[in-house]
Amino acid sequence: LVAAGLNTASNRTRGDTLSDDLIITYRVRATADEITRRVEGLLLEQTVELPRSAIHDAFVRGNIVGSVVGIEQLAEASYRVQLAQPAVTTASEPAQLLNVLFGNSSLQPDIELDDVTIPAQLEAIFGGPRFGIVGLRKLTDVEQRALTCAALKPMGLNAPQLAELCHSFALAGIDVIKDDHGLADHEFAPFAERVVACQRAVARAAQTTGRHAHYVPNLIGAPFELKRQLAFAQKNGVSAVMLSPMLVGLPSFYEIVRKSDVPVLAHPAFAGAQRISPVALLGKLFPLFGADAVIFPSYGGRFSYSELTCCQLATTLREPQTGHSAALPIPAGGIRTDRVKELLGTYGNDVMLLVGTSLLHEPSKILERSRHFVEQVAVHSAQA
Amino acid sequence: LVAAGLNTASNRTRGDTLSDDLIITYRVRATADEITRRVEGLLLEQTVELPRSAIHDAFVRGNIVGSVVGIEQLAEASYRVQLAQPAVTTASEPAQLLNVLFGNSSLQPDIELDDVTIPAQLEAIFGGPRFGIVGLRKLTDVEQRALTCAALKPMGLNAPQLAELCHSFALAGIDVIKDDHGLADHEFAPFAERVVACQRAVARAAQTTGRHAHYVPNLIGAPFELKRQLAFAQKNGVSAVMLSPMLVGLPSFYEIVRKSDVPVLAHPAFAGAQRISPVALLGKLFPLFGADAVIFPSYGGRFSYSELTCCQLATTLREPQTGHSAALPIPAGGIRTDRVKELLGTYGNDVMLLVGTSLLHEPSKILERSRHFVEQVAVHSAQA
Repeated sequence: LVAAGLNTASNRTRGDTLSDDLIITYRVRATADEITRRVEGLLLEQTVELPRSAIHDAFVRGNIVGSVVGIEQLAEASYRVQLAQPAVTTASEPAQLLNVLFGNSSLQPDIELDDVTIPAQLEAIFGGPRFGIVGLRKLTDVEQRALTCAALKPMGLNAPQLAELCHSFALAGIDVIKDDHGLADHEFAPFAERVVACQRAVARAAQTTGRHAHYVPNLIGAPFELKRQLAFAQKNGVSAVMLSPMLVGLPSFYEIVRKSDVPVLAHPAFAGAQRISPVALLGKLFPLFGADAVIFPSYGGRFSYSELTCCQLATTLREPQTGHSAALPIPAGGIRTDRVKELLGTYGNDVMLLVGTSLLHEPSKILERSRHFVEQVAVHSAQA
Repeated sequence: LVAAGLNTASNRTRGDTLSDDLIITYRVRATADEITRRVEGLLLEQTVELPRSAIHDAFVRGNIVGSVVGIEQLAEASYRVQLAQPAVTTASEPAQLLNVLFGNSSLQPDIELDDVTIPAQLEAIFGGPRFGIVGLRKLTDVEQRALTCAALKPMGLNAPQLAELCHSFALAGIDVIKDDHGLADHEFAPFAERVVACQRAVARAAQTTGRHAHYVPNLIGAPFELKRQLAFAQKNGVSAVMLSPMLVGLPSFYEIVRKSDVPVLAHPAFAGAQRISPVALLGKLFPLFGADAVIFPSYGGRFSYSELTCCQLATTLREPQTGHSAALPIPAGGIRTDRVKELLGTYGNDVMLLVGTSLLHEPSKILERSRHFVEQVAVHSAQA
């Protein structure tokens, strides 16, 4: 599909961009003397892995070797470089896409992946979020205000204990109650037992409140295990699931999304070690591969993203420049209830606020604190 | 299995190490005033994700919360920190193991993962290399000398062209001929066509030389695609395969290794972006999950590892401190034939030298240059 209209010229010229090229932006550390040679090396490293002088085939020169779109100096020995790489090099496949973006160049510390624009044809093949913001608002029956989310933890509680916690959050009116991303198929809280118990807990709370909270189990493991967990969760009526794409591997995440009938939340664990900008990785690649909602460490918590990065990330998720659906931003990572007003001021209503630890400090006050969180979100969501 | 003998004490004390703990070493940037608090945060972040004051359950305190083994100051505001985390937290599962090692902490730039020691019980579950050095020497029928390897590239050649190149390398006497890691199931050189053509090429060369070279296809894709490629390759008599664990995802890599009847080579693409030491990631985790041989960018080429890092990596692969088999180091990344003597001096004979680009510069000289490479390795391998 992507290969339609292959370029038959024997050599692409600098700046020549086909409509189906990937546009990839890197930050490159190099001196003014080195930069041209360095960019040529980067361009070739990601696909042919040969110097131009060793490429003798006309098809390869015309259709596989990309081109340099632009080189912009940012500071002394620092450049922003845009490359165009033919979409056909990706084989329309997630692992190979990552390879073309940042395979070998990830091993070169003078290079950082800064941004990526996926051509429409390739975007259509990957598909993007299947539910996105619209689907998650429909699922939770929340039209206008920001959504609320709490996390089941710590690891080590057994399934009845986690279900009890889940019941408290649901009673308090929290919309989405997710497993902590470290809850695996542990022997002290097996996946199947946990899912059944938590599903019962939200159903029981709904009899009291008249409103249905959504329990979101964490799927984690090798691909076969993920499939097994997804099937079990769906059979037991779960209405959304969560995975950490970088822990399970982005291509494995992509495959599970394609198999899932329910929305998929993405968690950023293991994603920060990449020398890739958060906007490119969490803001573009996660939804490209199907994340309907993306959890990220918000500014002011115990992680390092700046307020600017967080705003750019939320905007990128909500306003994709390509055709795919908007994904829901989920700021998290040490958010306290007393920051609800400030955070809704920053992010607006199209957001799901995830408050974890601060609801859990005193076991006797979990319900009370959760209710306060829910009220704060209702009060401080902007009115239409 | 791993959970046998759970600690029933309600609190573990600092420095208390169970035989089945993971020992994990991090580099931490912090001031002397901050370091104790920072290490406490790191310890809890990787499992319970709650401050100690919010953990009220005796089982969690006794069996899930790890302990600090040691804190050593390296320089101003720089520390080496050893933590013991209970093996049971990993659920004996590759994705969750990564999560405990470097899940959320990967999002904190003051932390680097430096080293890991896996307890014997967990090591036994993961299994390590199934063939390793011994199996690869048996497969290639090379008892003493270093092994030789060449790469099929560039991406964009069609299957007959790649097979022709493969034939030349095989005629020259090269032991292992691998796909470049960027060769996917591209429409211009489909996986199936490439495998059949290259298998025929090595068989044809064997009729001339009387010696069998081994063609190693690159498997790349989402899990279902990997399974399909592996099955096709094995059905067509392929005797080893290659994957990039970080591109496909380590848990997916692990699953394919378990399904494979043949040795598996690991490629480092996308692995350099991790803030994880090469010795820990390529030297320990890749073989833990089953890599029989590990390709890495050697010093003096176009990548950045130092000679010291490369030697440590090779030693770690060949001399695992746990019970698993030795894996074969494959130095690569811009190695020229005129460096064979030097590199065999550095690495010794238990190595497979991968020479890529420098064999390919002049199409008319590929056979000649490949023969020269093979001769150099024979001449400069240490004699018993």
